[in-house]
Order: sequence, then C-alpha cells, then structure tokens
Amino acid sequence: MNRSIVLKNRPKGRPRQTDFLFVSEEKPVLQAGEMILKTKYVSVDPYLRGRMNDAKSYVAPFELDKAISSGVIAQVTESNLAEFSMGDYVYGMLEWKEYQSSRGIGLHKVDGDKAPLSAYLGVLGMTGLTAYLGLSEIGRPKSGETVVVSGAAGAVGSVAGQIAKIMGCRVVGIAGTDEKCEMLTSDLGFDAAINYKTTGNIRKAIATACPQGVDVYFDNVGGDISDAVLVKINQFARIVVCGAISVYNLTSLPQSLSVQPFLVRNSALMQGFIVNDYAAKFPEAMQILTKWLEEGKLNYAETIVEGFDQIPQAFIDLFDGKNKGKMVVKIAGTQ
Amino acid sequence: MNRSIVLKNRPKGRPRQTDFLFVSEEKPVLQAGEMILKTKYVSVDPYLRGRMNDAKSYVAPFELDKAISSGVIAQVTESNLAEFSMGDYVYGMLEWKEYQSSRGIGLHKVDGDKAPLSAYLGVLGMTGLTAYLGLSEIGRPKSGETVVVSGAAGAVGSVAGQIAKIMGCRVVGIAGTDEKCEMLTSDLGFDAAINYKTTGNIRKAIATACPQGVDVYFDNVGGDISDAVLVKINQFARIVVCGAISVYNLTSLPQSLSVQPFLVRNSALMQGFIVNDYAAKFPEAMQILTKWLEEGKLNYAETIVEGFDQIPQAFIDLFDGKNKGKMVVKIAGTQ
Repeated sequence: MNRSIVLKNRPKGRPRQTDFLFVSEEKPVLQAGEMILKTKYVSVDPYLRGRMNDAKSYVAPFELDKAISSGVIAQVTESNLAEFSMGDYVYGMLEWKEYQSSRGIGLHKVDGDKAPLSAYLGVLGMTGLTAYLGLSEIGRPKSGETVVVSGAAGAVGSVAGQIAKIMGCRVVGIAGTDEKCEMLTSDLGFDAAINYKTTGNIRKAIATACPQGVDVYFDNVGGDISDAVLVKINQFARIVVCGAISVYNLTSLPQSLSVQPFLVRNSALMQGFIVNDYAAKFPEAMQILTKWLEEGKLNYAETIVEGFDQIPQAFIDLFDGKNKGKMVVKIAGTQ
Repeated sequence: MNRSIVLKNRPKGRPRQTDFLFVSEEKPVLQAGEMILKTKYVSVDPYLRGRMNDAKSYVAPFELDKAISSGVIAQVTESNLAEFSMGDYVYGMLEWKEYQSSRGIGLHKVDGDKAPLSAYLGVLGMTGLTAYLGLSEIGRPKSGETVVVSGAAGAVGSVAGQIAKIMGCRVVGIAGTDEKCEMLTSDLGFDAAINYKTTGNIRKAIATACPQGVDVYFDNVGGDISDAVLVKINQFARIVVCGAISVYNLTSLPQSLSVQPFLVRNSALMQGFIVNDYAAKFPEAMQILTKWLEEGKLNYAETIVEGFDQIPQAFIDLFDGKNKGKMVVKIAGTQ
C-alpha cells in the first residue's frame, strides 16, 4: 500500500481535516530514467495555505484531488539514475506520498552525517535560507541597530533573530506563549521577548523593548502586531515582509493601519520576500549557515510530529502556533 | 511695512485661515555679511501640513508664533555678500515674509532668462526633482511596463507621469476632475486617466486601464485609491510612497487594506520617498529635467495665485485639489 494525501477541498478560512483526503494507490514500479523514493521527513509551512486557494500568487495553486507537495527528505530505495544510489537521502519539493518515483530533477542529495536530516528542512533548508536572505538582502541590519522579529519562535523567525544577533544587533522577538518567549531569550540569545497574547498593550511593550526605535522589522505575521511595530520604526527602517500568517485564513481582505504615512515620514522600505527569487545566492547562504551551525553560533528548534497520517494536523497546528521552531513530520520507520 | 505669516495654531484636521496670523514687523536693515531679499514667488506644498503638527517627522515641526517657511524665489535688493548682487534671483527655503535678511546659506541663484522663475519651484525645483528621483530611484520603470500615478494632476504627479512616458511606459493617471483628466491625456501625454470621484468603481476602472496589471505605482495620495491600485500590482512591482495627501488632515490614524499579503505574494516593494535624501543626485537630475524641458519632451502645469495675503488660502486649497500642476503664489509687484 502506498498512501497519498490529496487536496479534497480548498479551505474556507482555517484549514480542516476534511479538506484533505488520504488515498491508497499502487507503489510505483521502477522505470528507466527514474528512481523510487521513500518519504522520510515532510515539511509543513504556513505558505502552503496560499497554494490551497485558487488565487494568483507567486506559485501556482495546488490542484484539487491531486497530491499536495512541500519540502521533503526522502531516501532512494531503487535507482536507475547514475547520480542517485540506493540509500542516498535527497531533498526537494515532493509529493505527500509514502513512496514516489522521480527523474531526479530539482532534487539534491543531503548528508545525514553532517547534520540531522530534519535540519535540511529547517535551518539548513528553505526556512534557514529565508531567514538569512530575507535579513541580508532586504533587512540589511547594521551592528547596533534594533531588529524586531514577529513569529519569532517559528522556523524562520527563530533563525532570523539569531542571525541578527550574530550581526551585532539588539533583537526583540514577538511570540505567543511564555514558553516560546523563554526559549527566545534563554536558548536563542534574543535580548527581549514579548508575549503578544498576554502583554495587554503591545505598542507599549514594543516601545519599552525598543528604546531606540525599530530599524529592521522581520515580519512573519502581519495584522495588529505589525501595526504596533510600524508606529515605532526609525528613519530608513527596512521591513522584510516574509509572511502574514495572521491573515492567511481570513476570508475577506483585512484592514490594517495605513502604512503610507509611516513609510513617507521615515523614508522607510517595506518589501515582500520570497526565497526562490534569490536562488542564485543559495550556495553561499548555505555555506554561511552551515559554518555558524558548526561553530555553535546558531541553534535551532524543531517540533517533530510522527506519522504520515499526522501531516494534515501538523499543518493545521501551525495556525495555532503549536510549533516551536520548524514543524516537521517524521514518517514512521525512519531514524 | 513688512508682513510675515506665522503659525498661530497647529491645525486640527483641515487647516483653516485662523491657524495663520499676519504680523507686521520692521523691514530688515542690511548688516555685514548679509543681504536683503524681497519675496517674489512662494511655493505651497502638501508636505507643509506635516510640519504644522507637533510630531516626529523627517523635518522639525514649525514653531508656533514663528514665521512659516517653504520654497521661495526672492530677489536680492541689497547685498553685502560677494556671491549675491542686487537684482539676482535666488531659490531656497525661506520664510513667509515680504522682506527678509539672509546670510546666503542654502540659497542658490536661478536664471529667469532660462526658464520662468516659478518653474524653479516646480518642474525645475523640488517637485520636479521629486518626480524624477522618486521614479528613477524607487520606481525604476522599464520600457513597456505599466505605471500608475495618483494625484496625477498635481505638481509631482503631472511630471512623474510624463517622465514615465519618456521612459517608454504605459501611464495611467488618477485625478479628481474631468478637466484634470483631460489635461493628463490631451496635454501631458498620459495613456489613460481616471476621475476617481465619478468613476463609481475605482478598482474596475484601474483593471480596465491596466490590462497588464501595475508594475510601478507612484503614490501621492494613499487611502482608498491606493488600496484599489494595490490589488492590481504585478510580481516585482515597485510602489513609490511619495505622499499621502488623503490622510494628512485626519485626526486619528487611518486604516487601509493590509498591504502585507500583496507585497509577499508579488515580491513587491513599497518605499517612502523624501527628496532630500537624494540631494547628491540633484545636479544630475536637474540637468536631465532642463534638457527634457528644452527639447519640449516635458510640459508643466502651474496654478499661480497672486498676492502675499493669498498664501494661506492657496495652501488650504491644495487639500481640495484646486490646483492643476504646481500651486505657486506670486507676490504683487513682481513680474
């Protein structure tokens, strides 16, 4: 048996289990020019929510009744390809299937001895690259500046904040539980953390945590939190608009504080960041992230859920902030 | 007698005549190291509204009971300075006074034979530089792209749209009267113009005028018009946030469509533009603007009001869109 997860309905608002359907199909049979892959780790990410809508975006929407895809680590079980051998681990955008065939296009090998396999979906994968390139290409923090990160305990935010610390900045994280805030300041070296759910007055909390104002805002959430940061930006501030998880499930276009007066008054920049636009810089970025990781300058958090059948729920749980760091699903029988 | 206009009250909402006070004072007497200037043309600009608030901004607020200042063309009537002679015309940030003394710092001479003196407050002055540098530094239009300009019949917008045409773009202007729209398409070469007050459905009008979507949005107004443009931006769109006249008189922070989802989805950029940040590029920009003007590639519109006593009303009228092109006050007795 070979299970696959297809998009049954385009979610209306918050995604539900019934939007996903588990389908059984034949295990693929090895063909010429192909290899067979066994799924080991599946990445679930907030941006996938956008692909579940039938709307214009930077990637095509998922098709109904077809398997969903995301970042996956898989192991080669059989191969007719010279570049890939049985036992190799590969990373790529693959389907939510236990087994699948591939011609190897767009996949690359990863080394489980250098780092845990799951790290290639997180700190050494798309989310790490997003944190590094979003910050270095748009945020461009200078030593001594104040950097605020929202969704700071998430896969991207937790790495972005640490990189800003490496770059010599004062770093303030915003997250949704005391436990996450504790992780930010105790384990990841953030200078301050704000629990937006309990702080009462988020604007006041940001003002207190950022006595010199905000030079760089690495935004993963949008909504009220971003409004509160906006009013504290400094001249020439840079806002990396990396995600807007607070609005992904809304069924009508949300309203926020008008950004224009703040942008004009401060000659400030706000730019949408999509990591794939910067593919040419992946090798260099990966080298830097690997080096920091080896030197112990960079830590990472993961929330690993086990079982192929848990993939939809792990995805849904992202919108309740149930993850600390990267949310990854480990497929049973893997190590 | 020497009249001066001081800020009597910080306007609450829309500025009123009673926020300004005419004061009589002695004509200045020539001192060593100074010259005496007679005001000829006064520039009134929407950004001055921000300086009337007691709020953090890119320039210090005006002080109460002190003369307001803006861009002024004045003539030297007496001089103890080697660089300036009687009869010279100068441009600079000067006070709203009929006569004032100056040490010459920050002033530069303008040539009334090369262009009408008022042009140095508009197309060859700050608003022309704003249009050119805002577009070239942030908008960066490429030939064949679609550029939308709001406040298109204003001092900055009318020049920005023409420059985008020179750069080979499809240019759509948004303005508030049919007469202004007619000027945009008939006199200034815009491809299309939308009267936002009568169009009924601004989003539909923009969609119709921009069948290929919007690549560059040169925004002078903010508010609902900007929301309507935002939903039509293309991948890698650039939004020049040059002004937000629709919100300058609001007494509470306005709400708009959340920009974050649109910026992320389109890898789009939005940046506040303040012309003084680009002072190093003024000479080059001025050369280009002068050349286009001489070649007849660039036209300009002016609304010239006469009389020193008309300065406050001319300023107030900006917020009703009573100007076509640059609003300038000519002081009686000048030519």
